[in-house]
Amino acid sequence: MGGAWPEVVILGGGFGGLAAARVLERARVPYLLLDARNHHLFQPLLYQVATGFLEGPAVAYPLRALLRRGRFLLGRVERVDLEGKRLLLEGGDALPYRFLVVATGSLPSDLGVPGVREHALFLKTLGQALRVRYRLLEALEKAARRGRPLDLLVVGGGPTGVELAGALAEFLRYTLPRDFPEVPAGTVTLLEAGPRLLSAFRPALGRYAEGALAQLGVRVRLGAQVAEVGEGWVRLSGGERLKGDLVLWAVGVRGNPLPGLPADARGRVPTDPCLRLVGYPEVYVVGDLNGLGFPQLAPVALQQGRWAARNLLRALREQDPLPFRYRDRGQLAVIGRNRAVAELWGLGVAGLPAWLLWAFVHLRELVGFRNRLLVFLDWAYTYLFREPGVRILPD
Amino acid sequence: MGGAWPEVVILGGGFGGLAAARVLERARVPYLLLDARNHHLFQPLLYQVATGFLEGPAVAYPLRALLRRGRFLLGRVERVDLEGKRLLLEGGDALPYRFLVVATGSLPSDLGVPGVREHALFLKTLGQALRVRYRLLEALEKAARRGRPLDLLVVGGGPTGVELAGALAEFLRYTLPRDFPEVPAGTVTLLEAGPRLLSAFRPALGRYAEGALAQLGVRVRLGAQVAEVGEGWVRLSGGERLKGDLVLWAVGVRGNPLPGLPADARGRVPTDPCLRLVGYPEVYVVGDLNGLGFPQLAPVALQQGRWAARNLLRALREQDPLPFRYRDRGQLAVIGRNRAVAELWGLGVAGLPAWLLWAFVHLRELVGFRNRLLVFLDWAYTYLFREPGVRILPD
Repeated sequence: MGGAWPEVVILGGGFGGLAAARVLERARVPYLLLDARNHHLFQPLLYQVATGFLEGPAVAYPLRALLRRGRFLLGRVERVDLEGKRLLLEGGDALPYRFLVVATGSLPSDLGVPGVREHALFLKTLGQALRVRYRLLEALEKAARRGRPLDLLVVGGGPTGVELAGALAEFLRYTLPRDFPEVPAGTVTLLEAGPRLLSAFRPALGRYAEGALAQLGVRVRLGAQVAEVGEGWVRLSGGERLKGDLVLWAVGVRGNPLPGLPADARGRVPTDPCLRLVGYPEVYVVGDLNGLGFPQLAPVALQQGRWAARNLLRALREQDPLPFRYRDRGQLAVIGRNRAVAELWGLGVAGLPAWLLWAFVHLRELVGFRNRLLVFLDWAYTYLFREPGVRILPD
Repeated sequence: MGGAWPEVVILGGGFGGLAAARVLERARVPYLLLDARNHHLFQPLLYQVATGFLEGPAVAYPLRALLRRGRFLLGRVERVDLEGKRLLLEGGDALPYRFLVVATGSLPSDLGVPGVREHALFLKTLGQALRVRYRLLEALEKAARRGRPLDLLVVGGGPTGVELAGALAEFLRYTLPRDFPEVPAGTVTLLEAGPRLLSAFRPALGRYAEGALAQLGVRVRLGAQVAEVGEGWVRLSGGERLKGDLVLWAVGVRGNPLPGLPADARGRVPTDPCLRLVGYPEVYVVGDLNGLGFPQLAPVALQQGRWAARNLLRALREQDPLPFRYRDRGQLAVIGRNRAVAELWGLGVAGLPAWLLWAFVHLRELVGFRNRLLVFLDWAYTYLFREPGVRILPD
């Protein structure tokens, strides 16, 4: 590794890491951002990439273009050497730090269900979202050759599962007859182990989501616990077997800690209330990885990243750190065209107002002018022509 | 294979196959288009995908969306059974035909130079163009880590090589300092075995291209014959070794015939002047694959595809076929922002007028309204901000 490296290192360019970077930029503190990917990913819209409603680059932004004062390094950390205060990188290099912000987020979890890793599709990274899209297009081509219908299974009735099932149902309803007239109408089934959808929202909104999905043709199965996943099928705990040409796994994430960091069974790293790793006050842990028990949502990661960077600035000035306080601004989930649910300021909202709010919030939060423009154009096009634009299988 | 299949089969959805399909659509003759890829590719702009100036889907269009009356099949042909009049598909299916249009285009050729297949990058498919982009971004990240410059080699001084070298030089000049301030300025070298660039154009335009490339910082080496390619280097026939972090092979294509079809040493299939396979008047061969000796250019493929389909319609009406006549509308090559060369109606044009003409012609020819809009927006953005938008490395 040539040259001098900044003393402050941020691991991960997701919502948490980027929020921390921005605080440091404004304070003119030099820092290094290290990520195994070269882009920030706007995960909340990833399901639209998977279903072809958005292009991949519309929800991904090059990290280098975001860091005008910080330095960027593309690389993978093999181990954190907490005692030696350095990161051991893949390839043998070692990177020393004085302060470290760990913001490596979460990974999909198979929840111990056999076959998930081999046969189900996940939706956490850009590559995974593109793989879902390619597998969907390939399955459609195969169905066209044989004149057979396509049956899709989505596992998990949280926001991701609901959004994905809604988008898939719209895809099958509007794109399928136009592009694949030889494929008979298939099914989208949403499997949820619990007694209702969107359990983090109030019950009325879960019921609204159920009704809205049913209107789109999605079969919602509550109390359906998946016991095993195979090639083209899912077995429920009661023994029932369901056919699924694609099985999308939208349930369960676990923290993505690094070797060398302590972690609990769910992969979360214990910190003090000021977001500092217990016993190592120079290491901050934010976002999905943080063990304080906040929900694994983008707003939490964002606020924790900002808070950790502010505490880091306080430490540089030899001030005491402040305990993290979360400002809950509510939550949103979208079901389809004009249909969404929102919980804000103690109110539950459903339907078009929630959808407009959802569209506004997501456009506002998307990083970068260009992406905002692209997403807006893609949406406008899809809305006007009811046709997802991206149906290319690269070779 | 279920159901009844059309009697007319078109192999390949490039310029030639698509032009044939359109003639059949207008004549309301049912047909099947078979391709191993699900998209039509606008190859003339592929070098812009490779350098990140355009998104992949901006130059690719789903074939299904183009064929409203025809039927589409995604699949690979293993062998043409000329005697049995059927196509043997990968996976064991057989597809009978009464008439066949073969338009499978060309593949890159290594011209017998050792190491090309293993170490050089090609630019014929969307996947290859994306690979060039990813390799370029990865090489830049590696160069950033080590603080070393990046040296790029382009082999071939035809239109593709000239366009690619110009786009790479602009990429290094405008994007590099902004996104990779830690990477020292590198070089782009264009190697041409012959005595001048763009040998298919008049000599003055080749000289103009040379000057314009030099202005962009490209080192043009004429009479430089590549004898061997290795990992990170190229050896010339005189023995000289040049360093190249990436080696782009933009020289030589050979026809992409199918087992079962006769072909010459360059992979071209012999046809009569009416574009029919010698001895098999129910088989038409068009585009890069046709052995009549026309240049391997998009306009030739387009005109031959149209012509073959019209002869096919004549055969259906039991009329005699007409010998193919090529209407040469001239040729164009672009070098960079505001710089291009054109040869039209016996005139040679260089500079901004040629560039405007080039932009107009390519926008007009791009298939599909949506792509035209995307390309226009990407260009406008790049032009205004001198910044290619697509710099995402997917995982």
